[in-house]
Formats: sequence, C-alpha cells, structure tokens
Amino acid sequence: MNPGLPETLKWEGGKLHLLDQRILPHQQSYLTIETMQDAWQAINTLAVRGAPAIGVAAGFALTQAMLTSSEPSQKEIEQTAKYLKSARPTAVNLSWAVDRLVESWIESPSTETLEREALAIYHEDLAICQNIGKHGADLIQSNQGVLTHCNAGSLAVSRLGTATAPMYEQHSRGVPFRVYADETRPLYQGARLTAWELDQAGIDVTLICDNMAATTMASGKIDLALVGTDRVTRNGDVINKIGTLNVAILCKHFGIPFYVACPSSTFDRNTDSGQKVPIEQRDKQEVLGDHAATVKVLNPAFDITPAALVTGIITEKGITPAAGIADFLAS
Amino acid sequence: MNPGLPETLKWEGGKLHLLDQRILPHQQSYLTIETMQDAWQAINTLAVRGAPAIGVAAGFALTQAMLTSSEPSQKEIEQTAKYLKSARPTAVNLSWAVDRLVESWIESPSTETLEREALAIYHEDLAICQNIGKHGADLIQSNQGVLTHCNAGSLAVSRLGTATAPMYEQHSRGVPFRVYADETRPLYQGARLTAWELDQAGIDVTLICDNMAATTMASGKIDLALVGTDRVTRNGDVINKIGTLNVAILCKHFGIPFYVACPSSTFDRNTDSGQKVPIEQRDKQEVLGDHAATVKVLNPAFDITPAALVTGIITEKGITPAAGIADFLAS
Repeated sequence: MNPGLPETLKWEGGKLHLLDQRILPHQQSYLTIETMQDAWQAINTLAVRGAPAIGVAAGFALTQAMLTSSEPSQKEIEQTAKYLKSARPTAVNLSWAVDRLVESWIESPSTETLEREALAIYHEDLAICQNIGKHGADLIQSNQGVLTHCNAGSLAVSRLGTATAPMYEQHSRGVPFRVYADETRPLYQGARLTAWELDQAGIDVTLICDNMAATTMASGKIDLALVGTDRVTRNGDVINKIGTLNVAILCKHFGIPFYVACPSSTFDRNTDSGQKVPIEQRDKQEVLGDHAATVKVLNPAFDITPAALVTGIITEKGITPAAGIADFLAS
Repeated sequence: MNPGLPETLKWEGGKLHLLDQRILPHQQSYLTIETMQDAWQAINTLAVRGAPAIGVAAGFALTQAMLTSSEPSQKEIEQTAKYLKSARPTAVNLSWAVDRLVESWIESPSTETLEREALAIYHEDLAICQNIGKHGADLIQSNQGVLTHCNAGSLAVSRLGTATAPMYEQHSRGVPFRVYADETRPLYQGARLTAWELDQAGIDVTLICDNMAATTMASGKIDLALVGTDRVTRNGDVINKIGTLNVAILCKHFGIPFYVACPSSTFDRNTDSGQKVPIEQRDKQEVLGDHAATVKVLNPAFDITPAALVTGIITEKGITPAAGIADFLAS
C-alpha cells in the first residue's frame, strides 16, 4: 500500500525506537528510547507525533519503564503514566493508551500483561486505519481535489494514517484524485511529512501555504477537506492542529464538505465541549524563527472547530455527523 | 511619528537608492540602482515592495534612465516604461506611476519635467498616507485588537503606510490598542516587516502564523481587520497579498469589519472585476524552502477578495463601501 515509507516506530527487545520526524524528510533515523525522560522529550518535541502514534508510543514506553524498573509497582506505573501524559496534555490518545495500560497492570500486575496490551493497541491501530480508509474512501470521487492540513498520515499512526487512509484506499483502487497539502505553520508538518509521504506513495500532491487555501477553493480546485484530530469532545467539537478552524470556516463559505477522520479512541467522553480543552501554547521561537526577537508571539498548538462546521466524522465504525458522535459511539 | 524607521528609498544626485527589504530586519542596507536591470530586479525580487513604494521607485528609476541616456527619446522612455512594468504585472501603482511619467515626457520632453513629476508622486504619497490615517483612525477604538496581513506599512510607502496609517495616527493621539500581525507566508512580510516596524514605533504588536487568525478571532481578540491592496477593480474587488481572502472570509464568519486602505491611485478603472486580473505565480522554491523538492507547489502572489466581503475602502478622500468605489472616486 505504502511501500516507500519507513515504520513510524519499532518495538524490539523491550526497547522503543522512534522514527525522528523532526528531521524528515532529509534524514530517516531512529531515536532509541533509554529512559522515560527520553520518551517525554520525544513526545514533547514532536519526534513522534500524531494522536494515534503518540498513544502507541506511550504504551510501549510505559511497558519499557516497568520492564527496566528494579521493583515495579502500581505507584510507579501511575507516576510514570502521569509524567508521560504531561508531555502533550491535549492529546487524548496519549491519556487513553496510558490509562489502558495502567488498568491492565492493576488487573494483572505483570510486564507480560503490559507488553501484550501495548502490542494490542498497536495492532488495533492498524486495523482501525484500514477501516477508516474503507469507510471514507467513497467520499473522494474520481478526479476530485482533497485539501488536508497537518499530518494525519502514515507517520501519525501505525500504517495508513487517519485522514490519509481514505486517500490510500482510493489510490489502491486506482481512482485518480489530487491532494492539496497545507504546509501547516509553524512546524510544517504538511510540507515535511504529508506532501512527502503522499508523493512517496505515488499520489498526486500539491503543497500550498496555509493562507492559499481560500484562493485554491475559490478557483474550484477543492471538492473536499479531510483532516485528522487530536480530540473530539462529547458535543462533537474537534480539537486539531492550529489552522484547522480556518479550513473549516473556508469550507463552510465555499460549500465544501469538511470531514474529520480519527479512531474512536480520540473521542473524549469526559469533556462536554471544545471550550473546556486546555490548548497547549508552544515556544514562541517556533513562530519567530530568525525574525525580530523582541516581538510578542501567540503559538497555540491547536484550535477548536465547532461541531456545526464539521460535515462528518469518519471512525473505524463508520461516518457520523459530529454532533451525534456520542450516541454513535455508544450504539 | 515613526522615528525609528529608515527611509524606504532615497533620491540623491540623480540616483535611486532602495532600502533592501529582503534582508530586513537583520540588516539595514541600501541598494544603489545603476541600470534599469537593477531596478527591474529590485522590484521583481521585492527589495522594494508595497504598491505605493513600487510606484514611487519606478518613477525615480524611469527618471534616472532618461538622465543617463545619451539620446533620450519618447521611444526610449516608452520601452523602458514597458520593461519596468513587467517586473510586477499585478501592481497597478507601478503602471500608474510609470504612465504618468511617460505622459509628462510627451507633454514636455525634458528630464527636469520627469524629475519634478517623480518627486511630485513621492510627496503626494506622503500626503495621501497622512489623509488615509486621519480618515481611518477612528475605526480603531480604545483597547481594541486589529488584525493586519502582509506589510502595507511604512516600508511599503513613503512614510506612514496605508493599512498602518490609521494605526500610527491613533498611536500618535495616545489611544491604546493591540495589533495582530499575520506572518504572511511564504515571504514573511508580516513577521519581518510589519511586526518589526510597529514594534519599533512603540505599538503593541503580536505576531501570529496566518493559520492562527481564526482561533484569535474566535477568542474575541480581534475587533477589526485592516489591510492594504495592490489593486481595486471597478466593481470593488480587492487584489492583495495571498491570504487576504482567507482573512476576509474569517471576518465575515465572525462578524468582524474588514477594511482595506489604499491611495486612490490603486483603483483600476480599466478592469471590471478581480477575476480579470492576472495573478502572478512566483517561484515554487519560496514555498518549498528546504522541504522535499520533488513535490508540486502553488505559489500565487495575490488573491482576489470580492467586494461583498469588504466592509469599506479607506483612501485619502475618505471611506467608501467597496462596491461604490468607482462612483466615490469619480465624484
């Protein structure tokens, strides 16, 4: 399906190895996680990124922590879990995966249980992406143009990606279409990762600056927007990479369907609405680069797209309107 | 008013010197124009930029061409004018200024006439900006937030800028307000120029990535958007830096007034609508940077904001709804 792409992560001999996405596409090199500080740092600085991949990585990291502990205990796993969660507080899959491992430990306190659970999360993730691809593929029709933002691609999850899964599925069916990838400032995940991985897979992809989305839509090139998400709240609000809200508003203006693809684990049943989600403010230097250093900067990592702007959410279980996600996932 | 800022251009001893805006804010250095190739290059590569400044610079450049010609003639000035215009085909002020000099030459073929006309354009530009500032200042109320895109500031014109003129005017009156400057990919005019010049002038300015505009608006921080323009067509469509259309659509969504400031010379009475304006496609490398080089890229320099999305246009003559600009300027 996607033969040119390296594995996002590897679990070998009780150690986690992460493809360092900060230096892609120039170098393909793996970070070996030795300590929980390494794991925290890798998640925090986006060496590993994308909601599902963070969850999978955190699962293996927590397993590794207990494997290397001299006296593994419930207290220790809980402390390590809390520490790992603090690396990306907005990523609900991180909490979800880590909590799942803690629960499995409480039920059966052994490292074998943990490793089995972490591997289960990994394999479930593969199957989830395949199902997202199958459910979402028909949204992309022959010769249409699809806009995507950030990287909810192969590198963000175990294999097919979330937002990209319908693209990879349609591509494998031989359906021709075009993708427009927002470069996604300030960290350029679209330029560095999405454009690169789609191009590697042989999909027709064009890179644009984030601020070119409106004129690209106005010229009739975009028929559909398809993005991932880090968290969907009970009311269907979508928390995703900064700039997603811009895309959703532009889609509404131009009458273009705006879809979000994610595993159902991205659904946060404990939070009523997007307004209650703490938005991580990142280092101003990411925006400033080498520009005038005295200037003030905003650098929110995410924005909140209200459910009303979302045409539908594609999960491994099917497609549902955003506002109905709670009922859909409960049914 | 703006004491920390250097002159955008200097006309000394029959030679044009341009502040090289490509290397601001790190270096403040002047390019000396020796040949018309130098002038063309400076305009084309944005060493001098901003609609009015390009017009002023082209006026002096054309004067210089005739001053240094062994046998200045109408044929030569017309050829040089055509050549200079081709450096930025979308910039209507460039054509306007150059045509004005050609007409003055036809009427009275002497280099003294040309120099007088070029200086007149320069001084008129100063007065125009002051009047834009006076007409637009009251749009910015105490403690409000103003979003701007690209640089229609002091560096884009002779002194106060166009979109920034109301800001400098309100600041000089002691009214406190905040400015949010879009960084303006791919060339970062907002980050390199606008944020820098407003900061130098003591105005409270915060830099954001272009894709952060929606969330900044959603959080209630923006009360007004104020941008410049390279061309306004007869029906009131606004051609401005790529990303302006995004801002205008977001403003409509959030019910935020969207104003455009420009000299009346920016009005293009010969073009019915924005759809008829050729949009300059720039080098893909500006977008790609050091990202994957095989990927396709779109890099339109401008987009077209329909008159319906523009709350008003501020010129030296007053404020008018965009759709009424032709009648307003004729009256």
